[in-house]
Amino acid sequence: MKSDNDVTVCEVGLRDGLQMLDTVFPTDEKIAWLRAEAAAGVPEIEVTSFVPPKIGPQFADAAEVVAAARSIENLISVALAPNLKGAQRGVELGVHKLNFVMSVSRTHNLKNVRREREESIADFVRIVEMLKSLPAGQRPRLIGGLSSALGCSYEGAIAVEEVVHCARALVDAGADELLIADTVGYATPTSVREVFKAVQAEVGNVPLSAHFHDTRGLGLANVSAALECGVRRFDASLAGLGGCQFAPGATGNIVMDDLCFMLDAMGMRTGVDLDKLVAVRAIVARNLPGTPLYGGLARSGLPRNYIPSAKRSA
Amino acid sequence: MKSDNDVTVCEVGLRDGLQMLDTVFPTDEKIAWLRAEAAAGVPEIEVTSFVPPKIGPQFADAAEVVAAARSIENLISVALAPNLKGAQRGVELGVHKLNFVMSVSRTHNLKNVRREREESIADFVRIVEMLKSLPAGQRPRLIGGLSSALGCSYEGAIAVEEVVHCARALVDAGADELLIADTVGYATPTSVREVFKAVQAEVGNVPLSAHFHDTRGLGLANVSAALECGVRRFDASLAGLGGCQFAPGATGNIVMDDLCFMLDAMGMRTGVDLDKLVAVRAIVARNLPGTPLYGGLARSGLPRNYIPSAKRSA
Repeated sequence: MKSDNDVTVCEVGLRDGLQMLDTVFPTDEKIAWLRAEAAAGVPEIEVTSFVPPKIGPQFADAAEVVAAARSIENLISVALAPNLKGAQRGVELGVHKLNFVMSVSRTHNLKNVRREREESIADFVRIVEMLKSLPAGQRPRLIGGLSSALGCSYEGAIAVEEVVHCARALVDAGADELLIADTVGYATPTSVREVFKAVQAEVGNVPLSAHFHDTRGLGLANVSAALECGVRRFDASLAGLGGCQFAPGATGNIVMDDLCFMLDAMGMRTGVDLDKLVAVRAIVARNLPGTPLYGGLARSGLPRNYIPSAKRSA
Repeated sequence: MKSDNDVTVCEVGLRDGLQMLDTVFPTDEKIAWLRAEAAAGVPEIEVTSFVPPKIGPQFADAAEVVAAARSIENLISVALAPNLKGAQRGVELGVHKLNFVMSVSRTHNLKNVRREREESIADFVRIVEMLKSLPAGQRPRLIGGLSSALGCSYEGAIAVEEVVHCARALVDAGADELLIADTVGYATPTSVREVFKAVQAEVGNVPLSAHFHDTRGLGLANVSAALECGVRRFDASLAGLGGCQFAPGATGNIVMDDLCFMLDAMGMRTGVDLDKLVAVRAIVARNLPGTPLYGGLARSGLPRNYIPSAKRSA
């Protein structure tokens, strides 16, 4: 049973962290990374993206990576499905969760997936229909992802009503979960509270996740605000890798290691061993020598006499 | 009149940011820095520390720097006074605020100012007596600073009761303001709420400031938590310079530029022009070529179509 202190973290570095890079991360090293991070206790990992190999050569190894992830006991494998074809691929490979992403910003949606938001919603409906036709045991959970929900580097501010409208549409279509994303790091604790509360008021108890970028240093402040709203699932990437090629100025996701430290130090349970997690950075570092790695915990270590959350209340 | 939306930021880079560095920052460049930052709208600047020049050669130019700060209209000059002698020096030079710092951690206090906490409190009492003997117009405001209030790299966790005890002692002695400092970046939003609420409950409406370090990436999350508790004055340093030579593993203060962006984007009024503030980083950069400068706003710029807080509600 999950308590209100349990928080699920989802590593997105293997997808969001790699999609912008020119360097193709070797398949066996991706597998070493996800194995090590699962062994550190990270319960969900977004392992790939089902984009055509021409667009995303980084993800040409999706089949192998998903197979490796599926072989790890208790790990929930997530993959980005940009469209029906991608979702079908995910079903074939047997991922546990499909992450369908549309942008609340019309312009960003046009640039990122080259279609109107209404077409994206229609795509989502087709994915749900396809999933419904499957036997229950073969049906992955479906995340309805809303990117640029807290601002857009093309359009600037995004009206809360637009987020609520898109959230409603994806839930009506059959989303199992919603993921609200601040793709370009415009969010503040104030806007996070406003948007998450409005979406919760609209869609009731559909599980809400948050995906923040640390573009202007506010990532963990926004996590803290979302926690207060009751959000209990967060995307992050080890060492803060990440960005979006269609969102100029976007930099890394929030740092997984610092996120897990903050949650643990606040008395939340993530299931993650912080020392083991920090050690996984070496795998990223050896494969991306020129890429900046972020994170305060890795630089400064745990506080003296630190007692992990799981041992504190025992 | 101040409203609940008004937040005062205090630049501490010229003191906290420089005290650990081997490089002596040239006096005229310190003056250029503080002038530029005051011109960007920063209302308070901690310009120096009255430590003996043998211990702090960085601050041998205190007289010149304070004189320059005093000549700037509307700027409140702050200086660290480690003891009675330092406070007397501050009075002679005419600083507007004296920041007396003791550590809530006994061990850190012994290492940092080489005395027991009770001796520090007795020092503080002597400073108050000295200040009371002055004509009202010559009396600087006195900040009672409590460092290591949210954790200590020697002692680990610090009991809330210890913070409350020290806060009570400084307020009883005659502190005009209190400054609660997370010297080594151990605080979380949870511990910030716990400590600030406990101190507020004890000392009533004495103004409380917060001084956070971004050691493990939680600095702005902690600001957000303190804001919720009603705190409306924050220390920070441009580009996140800073540290403490007696607190191993301590890294920079929270980044002034990102703090001002967060506050402004949340609709608070700081009086700071964000573009002008970011431009001041060039002065720091040209004088400290080897020192890492932090900050997301400087890296990524303002959000598209960003409207400053002061213009939004107009």
